[in-house]
Amino acid sequence: MRWNGWGDPAKAKELPRAVRALIPLLLGRVRRPAPSPSLAEVRVESSGLTDADRAAFAAIVGPEGVQVTEEARIRHAGGRSTLDLLRRRAHEQRVPDGVVLPADHAQVSACLAVAGERDVAVIPYGGGTSVVGALDPERGWHRAVISLDLRRLTGLLRVDALSGEAVLAAGTTGPDAEALLAAHDLELGHYPQSFRYATIGGFAAARSSGQNSAGHGRFDTMVTGIRVATPTGDLELGRSPGSAAGPDLIRLFLGSEGIFGVITEVRVRVHPVPTRRVFESWSFADFAHGVDGLRRVAQRGAGPTVIRLSDEAETAVSLAQVGRIGRAIARGASVVTVYEGEDIDARRARTGELLRAAGGTSSGAGDAEDWAAGRFDGPYLRDSLLDAGVFCETLETATTWSGLPALKAAVETALRDGFHDAGARSTVMCHVSHVYPTGASLYFTVLAGIRSDPLSVWTAVKARVNDAILAHGGTISHHHAVGRDHAPWLAQEIGPTGTRILAAVKRELDPQGLLNPGAVIPDVLLTEG
Amino acid sequence: MRWNGWGDPAKAKELPRAVRALIPLLLGRVRRPAPSPSLAEVRVESSGLTDADRAAFAAIVGPEGVQVTEEARIRHAGGRSTLDLLRRRAHEQRVPDGVVLPADHAQVSACLAVAGERDVAVIPYGGGTSVVGALDPERGWHRAVISLDLRRLTGLLRVDALSGEAVLAAGTTGPDAEALLAAHDLELGHYPQSFRYATIGGFAAARSSGQNSAGHGRFDTMVTGIRVATPTGDLELGRSPGSAAGPDLIRLFLGSEGIFGVITEVRVRVHPVPTRRVFESWSFADFAHGVDGLRRVAQRGAGPTVIRLSDEAETAVSLAQVGRIGRAIARGASVVTVYEGEDIDARRARTGELLRAAGGTSSGAGDAEDWAAGRFDGPYLRDSLLDAGVFCETLETATTWSGLPALKAAVETALRDGFHDAGARSTVMCHVSHVYPTGASLYFTVLAGIRSDPLSVWTAVKARVNDAILAHGGTISHHHAVGRDHAPWLAQEIGPTGTRILAAVKRELDPQGLLNPGAVIPDVLLTEG
Repeated sequence: MRWNGWGDPAKAKELPRAVRALIPLLLGRVRRPAPSPSLAEVRVESSGLTDADRAAFAAIVGPEGVQVTEEARIRHAGGRSTLDLLRRRAHEQRVPDGVVLPADHAQVSACLAVAGERDVAVIPYGGGTSVVGALDPERGWHRAVISLDLRRLTGLLRVDALSGEAVLAAGTTGPDAEALLAAHDLELGHYPQSFRYATIGGFAAARSSGQNSAGHGRFDTMVTGIRVATPTGDLELGRSPGSAAGPDLIRLFLGSEGIFGVITEVRVRVHPVPTRRVFESWSFADFAHGVDGLRRVAQRGAGPTVIRLSDEAETAVSLAQVGRIGRAIARGASVVTVYEGEDIDARRARTGELLRAAGGTSSGAGDAEDWAAGRFDGPYLRDSLLDAGVFCETLETATTWSGLPALKAAVETALRDGFHDAGARSTVMCHVSHVYPTGASLYFTVLAGIRSDPLSVWTAVKARVNDAILAHGGTISHHHAVGRDHAPWLAQEIGPTGTRILAAVKRELDPQGLLNPGAVIPDVLLTEG
Repeated sequence: MRWNGWGDPAKAKELPRAVRALIPLLLGRVRRPAPSPSLAEVRVESSGLTDADRAAFAAIVGPEGVQVTEEARIRHAGGRSTLDLLRRRAHEQRVPDGVVLPADHAQVSACLAVAGERDVAVIPYGGGTSVVGALDPERGWHRAVISLDLRRLTGLLRVDALSGEAVLAAGTTGPDAEALLAAHDLELGHYPQSFRYATIGGFAAARSSGQNSAGHGRFDTMVTGIRVATPTGDLELGRSPGSAAGPDLIRLFLGSEGIFGVITEVRVRVHPVPTRRVFESWSFADFAHGVDGLRRVAQRGAGPTVIRLSDEAETAVSLAQVGRIGRAIARGASVVTVYEGEDIDARRARTGELLRAAGGTSSGAGDAEDWAAGRFDGPYLRDSLLDAGVFCETLETATTWSGLPALKAAVETALRDGFHDAGARSTVMCHVSHVYPTGASLYFTVLAGIRSDPLSVWTAVKARVNDAILAHGGTISHHHAVGRDHAPWLAQEIGPTGTRILAAVKRELDPQGLLNPGAVIPDVLLTEG
């Protein structure tokens, strides 16, 4: 992964000529920024880890498992939000004092013990794809901070083919997990846009949701068990797919983003590798009709594996279909459906019937195939846009079907007005990519021609958006999680009593506050608790 | 509801003659117990509530909302487990010091405040159908204990037909909820055996699962929002059907059984009232083949609304079909399927194909219709068996598909050996009534001819069963919950770290330990924390 951008540098996407031509039309004249620094140009403070610290961690993970080089520390400086990338371009991103790589659950536990003894904060680190500041190297009230990189906790630990369950080590990446499962003719089927780099533990800790969520559910619902190391004791949870044995404590760790403990193993529901895949695109007169169609499909349980709806703006620039960006200017609102697994024809027929009843017209497989071909490539495009002087970021929320139109309008207004007040033109696109019987997600992409200081402009705009989300009944995140960026709004979403619950659990499991200081719960709320 | 038995006395079931003839064959000679005392014969200690206590509660709920009569207190003495009924027959069940009936959320909050000021423990009380000791009037370390009866918190507070959601007051009973929703052509579709008496709040607090769980999921999955009053603050949770905004705190209250707070409102997913219902019964050579069939159906998502499998013993006595008990002696293992809602024919065809592939033979609609007709009547039969000197109780667990056979065998062995060691003959029946892609529940009914002191015999046998469940990978409860009866085993199931989490949340929200002392977490673990 590039240290200051997305993914494999060899796969970087040049902006298509048509997009370059569109930018001034949409955003006015943009200012091309100074080129991004190279890794060698970045200077970081010297590590706060002492020789004794390093020796103590090395005694657990081996000397090669403790890294304090500038490169290792820069590579663990944070996640991949646009703020992260802008900070790196501006030489402003802080780095941890070192990187420690445990190889198994016992080493994770031992590292937490050493961290406690030596007053070192710990940032659990999976694929490094957080877009909400969950990986910022905050030391809280501690002397130093390490990134606890879980990449060596990898592998398929157990398979129960009869029950359709597999246990994966938390540091296993999406592609590695699927390759290991494929050897047993099994698939997890969890494909968030971060799939190529993100890890199983990260999916769990951040309550991820993938592109196949209509078929296989969000990651929450795939998890049937977890193993966790906390600073004060271990947990193994999950004896049964359903239980009334007290509150479901697994759900307290899903979404905990490393503040309670480090998830080291995840038991997940798996299914046979699909042998067939059918694509179908649909066209609607407008977004509202498309939403009506998706609602009918979700409430009937018609069964597409993927269903997603782009609004008029996203349909127009075909951003949903990265491979074709700028090539086709479509009208109305487009829907992509994909069907995998059993009974494809019946599910497709039912889904089609409902989409037609909502005013949809089938437009063949092409657009849906294009979407699938480019579905992990969106983040590459952001890097190219930043290079071209275009600010680009995404954000997302969710609410009930009845609340969706007002929530969408409120977020769009907050984005447009926010950039306008900063003297920048912007364009906003939106899609629905996760549906439930009672509601759906909204995913926004915003492009803006910020002329100066995009960091502070975006910080202000994003605050305005977050306020609008909460004021209009949305959740502060549907699948990007909380991190540090959303923490103040999470406190509003769950209220003071909810925040006190999280703080109480945090104090019980991590009384020293070692783990991921400032993520999920702002430190100030924790110490006030 | 009868104070010392189940349901409407007018609906009491006489034991069919064939059953009376079967009892000595199965269980040997049983001893007919002394007749159950009448309510007027029961003497209770005088109420520990002072005049000032009563006045303080009456100031909130009105004088008619504070009841201290012997009858009111006896009627809130506990739940409806066989232990509860035996204790009432033996004049051994304790009663609360009074019953307080708040009418809305604000009154619940105010009652908790008064309870805290006056050092009075509070047992939240819904339909009174707990079978795990969740309603025992434990005062913990407090001066007195009240039953907080939520029957006046009733009604359909909001309907969002577009989103398929409804908000119900927590004290609304199952039938009342369905009647209120039916006026909007909507159904909740949650039908546990306790349906006629249990409440929406109880379903949530105890993580109930109903007979239609194959179609609509367990109650956990129907809940999209809750409102809770705790001694230290209120919560309103649930903005979205899916979220990554930190851990799902709703799940911390589902299964909390009133120890963290009182659930006052529940937002649930609802669907259109089904207009058609199709029944089909199936016969399998044995339980193992039936399990194979259910597994295929659950993993394929074939879509029956109800699917349940009786083992050979239950099939033989047709206990699954209460109306026909003793009339038919069937062979093999029988399966009931019911289909409601949309696409019935396709779902039935898919399900049938899979059951046939597992060796099943369709046996028409009759048995399934009989099951449906008597599906809420099982508990009446228990009263008649107890009158006839036959101990009868049920218990349940769940695990993965691969773990199911060993778990079933272990529970059966624990039951048979346990009764045998107490000199009693027993017969054990089992069914699977809740299925998931990765596993299923097991529900056991045991009949035993206990000659003396059934209370202590069953307490010992149940402990042995609980040990066997945990030793064989099962959960201590799939849908009956924890109460006080399972609390020591829950601590084993979630381990010391899990128990510390629950205790930390409890101390944060209810620092005085007012709410349901001893339920879910044994008091000793709470004070040690």
